[in-house]
Amino acid sequence: MVRTSPHAALLAAIATLPFTATLATATPQEGSGVAWDIVEGLTTEIGPRIAGSDAEARARVWAEAKLKALGFSNVKIEPFTTGAWQRGPEHARLTAPYQQPLAITALGYSVPTPAEGLKAEMVYFPTLAALEAAPAGSLKGKVAFVDHAMRRAQDGSGYGPYGNVRRKGPSIASQKGAAGIVIRSAGTDSNRDPHTGSTMWMKGATPIPAGAVSNPDADLIARIAARVAAGKAGPMQIDLTLLGKPFPNAPSGNVVAELPGRDPSLPIVLVACHLDSWDLGTGAIDDASGCGIVTAAALAAQKQGKTLRTIRVLWSGNEEMGMGDGGGAHYAEMHGKEPHALAMESDFGADNVWQVKNNFAPADKALADKVNAALWPMGIVPHQGSVEGGADVGAIIRQQHLAVVDLGQDGTHYFDLHHTPDDTLDKVDPATLQQNVDAWTAVLKVIANEPGEIANGVGGEEQ
Amino acid sequence: MVRTSPHAALLAAIATLPFTATLATATPQEGSGVAWDIVEGLTTEIGPRIAGSDAEARARVWAEAKLKALGFSNVKIEPFTTGAWQRGPEHARLTAPYQQPLAITALGYSVPTPAEGLKAEMVYFPTLAALEAAPAGSLKGKVAFVDHAMRRAQDGSGYGPYGNVRRKGPSIASQKGAAGIVIRSAGTDSNRDPHTGSTMWMKGATPIPAGAVSNPDADLIARIAARVAAGKAGPMQIDLTLLGKPFPNAPSGNVVAELPGRDPSLPIVLVACHLDSWDLGTGAIDDASGCGIVTAAALAAQKQGKTLRTIRVLWSGNEEMGMGDGGGAHYAEMHGKEPHALAMESDFGADNVWQVKNNFAPADKALADKVNAALWPMGIVPHQGSVEGGADVGAIIRQQHLAVVDLGQDGTHYFDLHHTPDDTLDKVDPATLQQNVDAWTAVLKVIANEPGEIANGVGGEEQ
Repeated sequence: MVRTSPHAALLAAIATLPFTATLATATPQEGSGVAWDIVEGLTTEIGPRIAGSDAEARARVWAEAKLKALGFSNVKIEPFTTGAWQRGPEHARLTAPYQQPLAITALGYSVPTPAEGLKAEMVYFPTLAALEAAPAGSLKGKVAFVDHAMRRAQDGSGYGPYGNVRRKGPSIASQKGAAGIVIRSAGTDSNRDPHTGSTMWMKGATPIPAGAVSNPDADLIARIAARVAAGKAGPMQIDLTLLGKPFPNAPSGNVVAELPGRDPSLPIVLVACHLDSWDLGTGAIDDASGCGIVTAAALAAQKQGKTLRTIRVLWSGNEEMGMGDGGGAHYAEMHGKEPHALAMESDFGADNVWQVKNNFAPADKALADKVNAALWPMGIVPHQGSVEGGADVGAIIRQQHLAVVDLGQDGTHYFDLHHTPDDTLDKVDPATLQQNVDAWTAVLKVIANEPGEIANGVGGEEQ
Repeated sequence: MVRTSPHAALLAAIATLPFTATLATATPQEGSGVAWDIVEGLTTEIGPRIAGSDAEARARVWAEAKLKALGFSNVKIEPFTTGAWQRGPEHARLTAPYQQPLAITALGYSVPTPAEGLKAEMVYFPTLAALEAAPAGSLKGKVAFVDHAMRRAQDGSGYGPYGNVRRKGPSIASQKGAAGIVIRSAGTDSNRDPHTGSTMWMKGATPIPAGAVSNPDADLIARIAARVAAGKAGPMQIDLTLLGKPFPNAPSGNVVAELPGRDPSLPIVLVACHLDSWDLGTGAIDDASGCGIVTAAALAAQKQGKTLRTIRVLWSGNEEMGMGDGGGAHYAEMHGKEPHALAMESDFGADNVWQVKNNFAPADKALADKVNAALWPMGIVPHQGSVEGGADVGAIIRQQHLAVVDLGQDGTHYFDLHHTPDDTLDKVDPATLQQNVDAWTAVLKVIANEPGEIANGVGGEEQ
């Protein structure tokens, strides 16, 4: 998503001001309203906030103050300990058959190479399936490179299968004896900004150093691999330095806050986002936007007076690196005994909502129709299919077999930015951010004012 | 310019191949023809090739072999010594009022900060004019930040005035006593990839550390500066590490080659590009594309038989950092006594040619009409205005008062990529690259077959 700076107007305005010895003055806001203030504030005053870091702790304090200032009740930081990972210095270059620096970043839960770098032959695999088909032991002492062909899609559906190169590729390479792995980023842009993200070590797989290169670097490697395969060049050699390492028992925490309803005896409505971000960008689309959207919508739903049910907001800690012990799990542990009616999450950027799905029981068809009717005027179309909920609400949904509404956002450009340094405020369009708030508000007004039971028609585990 | 990987078809094809223990096979070429081969080859087999480096030397050897293989005569490497600059480790972060890492790169001819970093207050200036207006001595011990508002333009015309922040800003900040300077990149993208480029130390200005941050980082700094100005936050503090340093007497060289004409007594036609690149990307648009275009066009102009005049190709060394001692100057020194008829250069990427200008004498109107007529069918429009020639041919143009034809390329996206890590092969569209070759071929067919004198109507110095 190439755009001119969002501060064009600001800078033009500043440029006309009389010079002062120290500073120009202007208000930097391009957008306005609660959602924008949250996204702008978190990205400007906190910035990157990887789970377990001091920055994530500062973000919790910032969130607590912000939610109190916005009028929420029962605002609490709920600390927990979690598995996390810390980035270290990282760089790589091809040393043969050509000398080429590579734009690389470590994957979460990578283990470190030697400080002086891992020097090894790099073997090209066009797909994860090709890596899986490699004979046992065939990669001993080598670095595997795994390519793939993720393409952009409005519903982001490429991320599941192609993201598996990141999630599973390192374990598979390790099982084949590889000393390390480099993958093409799970992303759809053509910047030299690789996409990070956690890998998952399968049972029995010895962790190895694991990194991702940008798409242009992967293109380069593919061109070189073709020369190698054609006998026009000798084997690829890589000099790989990735010094990030796991960070067990890291401090994290959730922030929860409530807008009490008129009937405290009714099960509550939970809306969630995550407060932590990857460390490369400032976490504007992933997921300051989600926090802005759910929080602004909760407030807007009560603008004309309290809703019937209490709306609880969860800004989760350690979504990005939580392997069953992140903020979602901790929330379910802390609040699993409190009755919930429905849970929703916003964690897919700030582009327009274009589809809605639910998992309501057939008996709740009238409620589903009301939700859909509230969204028709906004161009949001009901779709069938499984609902996702999301990582921050998944545990409580499974535990309580909750009803879910998924507001599906346009993901065409999401994987240009996801988990990269480019996830910054300028990528958030204030107009589409507000469209999200409006859609969420419409749904919350229906759901939080529903007096009857809201039943999940699917069952908890099969969401 | 966000695009899907150019190797979609390749990867899809590879994915269908049977797995082999080591490699998939396929030909990686998306484009075809001489120009594409040069751009693909230089970026894949050489990559970044900053002036004075071993990589630039490898590029000369590569170029010599390539030009010989293409059938050029008198292929020669012409070595010279030049002023250059070497990049070092570089990173920066704000430490107050908020902790934020910054995506930064040093400018060419920056001097190093202390290895442990320069820690100083950073003062915001909205424009170069604001910096110029700062009282003498007011920046003592501080780092100046200079913002600006460059916008994209088809003719690239923002680069002159806004590029002055890079060219002149560091000298002006130094003259005000600054310990260092950081600027908003002279670029139009919104990636976290800052734009490098040389600064020029004015007479009497003490060199200081000088770097550029990406546009999103500059946006962040502008937002923070507004909070500081409004009294909502304390002063900005930066921790700046830029260890690049000047590299005097660096080894460089030009590569020249000829396609002899039927009448060796006639003044030759010179077409040029530059072989060196900045070190952050692989120099695909700046300027492997130029070398591909002029070389392919020279060959195409002789495809039906020798032209009347000899066409000489110059792949210049050290264009990017030559301060009057780069490849263009060395060419004029070596070849200034040989009669030239006209010089042209391609150094503005690979997007479509859309306008043509010349500096022909009124007596040459018929020739100008012929050049223009050859381009009309391609949608290329004659424009008035001064011609530029370019850095690689500027010295010989001034020395011999040469005629010039400028084929103006679309620069709308050029400054998204210029001098950044994103200057890679995937940004070159084979179709527009070929349109350039076709336009250049059409012009060369007219010019290199012109029997009469080709006169500059402007005079050498005022181009």
